[in-house]
Amino acid sequence: MSTQITTMDQHPVLRDDRASAWLGIEVIRAGRGTAETRMVVRDEMLNGFGMAHGGMLFAFADTCFALACNDPDADGSTITVAQGADIEFIRSVPAGAELVARGQVCFQGPRSGLYDIRITSGDAVVAEFRGRCRTIPNRFDQSKGA
Amino acid sequence: MSTQITTMDQHPVLRDDRASAWLGIEVIRAGRGTAETRMVVRDEMLNGFGMAHGGMLFAFADTCFALACNDPDADGSTITVAQGADIEFIRSVPAGAELVARGQVCFQGPRSGLYDIRITSGDAVVAEFRGRCRTIPNRFDQSKGA
Amino acid sequence: MSTQITTMDQHPVLRDDRASAWLGIEVIRAGRGTAETRMVVRDEMLNGFGMAHGGMLFAFADTCFALACNDPDADGSTITVAQGADIEFIRSVPAGAELVARGQVCFQGPRSGLYDIRITSGDAVVAEFRGRCRTIPNRFDQSKGA
Amino acid sequence: MSTQITTMDQHPVLRDDRASAWLGIEVIRAGRGTAETRMVVRDEMLNGFGMAHGGMLFAFADTCFALACNDPDADGSTITVAQGADIEFIRSVPAGAELVARGQVCFQGPRSGLYDIRITSGDAVVAEFRGRCRTIPNRFDQSKGA
Repeated sequence: MSTQITTMDQHPVLRDDRASAWLGIEVIRAGRGTAETRMVVRDEMLNGFGMAHGGMLFAFADTCFALACNDPDADGSTITVAQGADIEFIRSVPAGAELVARGQVCFQGPRSGLYDIRITSGDAVVAEFRGRCRTIPNRFDQSKGA
Repeated sequence: MSTQITTMDQHPVLRDDRASAWLGIEVIRAGRGTAETRMVVRDEMLNGFGMAHGGMLFAFADTCFALACNDPDADGSTITVAQGADIEFIRSVPAGAELVARGQVCFQGPRSGLYDIRITSGDAVVAEFRGRCRTIPNRFDQSKGA
Repeated sequence: MSTQITTMDQHPVLRDDRASAWLGIEVIRAGRGTAETRMVVRDEMLNGFGMAHGGMLFAFADTCFALACNDPDADGSTITVAQGADIEFIRSVPAGAELVARGQVCFQGPRSGLYDIRITSGDAVVAEFRGRCRTIPNRFDQSKGA
Repeated sequence: MSTQITTMDQHPVLRDDRASAWLGIEVIRAGRGTAETRMVVRDEMLNGFGMAHGGMLFAFADTCFALACNDPDADGSTITVAQGADIEFIRSVPAGAELVARGQVCFQGPRSGLYDIRITSGDAVVAEFRGRCRTIPNRFDQSKGA
């Protein structure tokens, strides 16, 4: 089966991800085609209306997407990157809200894939994100993707 | 004509926007249905592959979108919020890149609107963002939207 | 529970839907927030590359979406219409292919909703469609929506 | 410069496109990265609410997209196909409406591209379509793409 990862620095995708570190994203679990993450909305993530900025919600979902579409057990010769995504904002959330993102593969071919990431706060759905990705040769430091 | 705004704290939408402040977003101009903003990619905005995190690019475009769809001369009785958006990532950008976002109304009806925001770095297109918004009664502090 | 509908002319949404009739769409089941439909790709639905035209696949999913987001037991005072949709084409299909669309509510609020429709051919996923809808007063003939 | 094409059967993409023929789509002009088409909404294109079916509008835009992203002067070794698209429905249209679609390249790389297609009826915008495409080897009859 796929590796279950519970701390961020164990996962090749997140080890050097400074944006996700700033957001305080924690990995609940991450395996092949699936991931679950957690984030608490802080004051510096709010927009001018006092709600979580859409970009911060998107970034939270996008990191969960990267975890779901990059198999932690892969050999590191390729990486899978977001080509695009659509997000629907359903409910606004205030500072202090604890958010969970659950990502699931919807379709994965040899090179392109589609993933659904749902953000919830308690029982309420906050946003639905659908990401499109592409697998490309890893031109980055091989040690990062190993 | 519409007001031309050149500093962030003059615009009702950005005055209290802490996320945009953290991102260091500067307003080049903002009027009715149009906006132009600037941001420099910093180290803490990078993802695990050493490129600007998709969520940071999205957030940059989303703020430009909020400026374009909220008329700075409006009376503050309504606010226009993002309902959803689609982003296509075209070119990855490293730390230090100076990005410009240009937002333009594509369609604006009485309550719903569609806006296109293009992010560029020099002559190169970095991302294309299309945002969907909805105008709702302002239930926030009236002084913020005045 | 919700009504299960098996012939097209029983459902208020499809009774006068000439486009769906031309496409030969059959309703397998339709209830509140869910629908399943069937269509066989005919020669006149092909594009210039000899595959089912993307617009015909979209139309097939869109009809399934309309069935899922319009409760057949509703009182007819409102209708729910597509505001927009995103479709991802995963596999091309030839003439003769028998397609099934399965629609499921992803989120439904008082006025806006989000629905996922998957098109399959046998075990293979052909397309993933995500539709955004809005519920509005029924300004059409009341008898149609009764 | 690029070829201007005014009849459908001259363009390699539309020569055998039976779906577009059924829709009655006419090519006003088509060149590299751009296209303009025309279609009249017929009774058999209506949905159950008596408006043009969303799938028919999508199909109309999708054909314009195919024309814009397939250079009529290309050598036929590759074809460019839709990978996905997002459409926003802005105004509903009745039978008899004469629609024009204008497609324009938004971004075109070596393999992937993004195109915007706007559908209008007179001065009114009916729908905004954004298509994502991918250029692949032509495995179809070479004479079709010549």
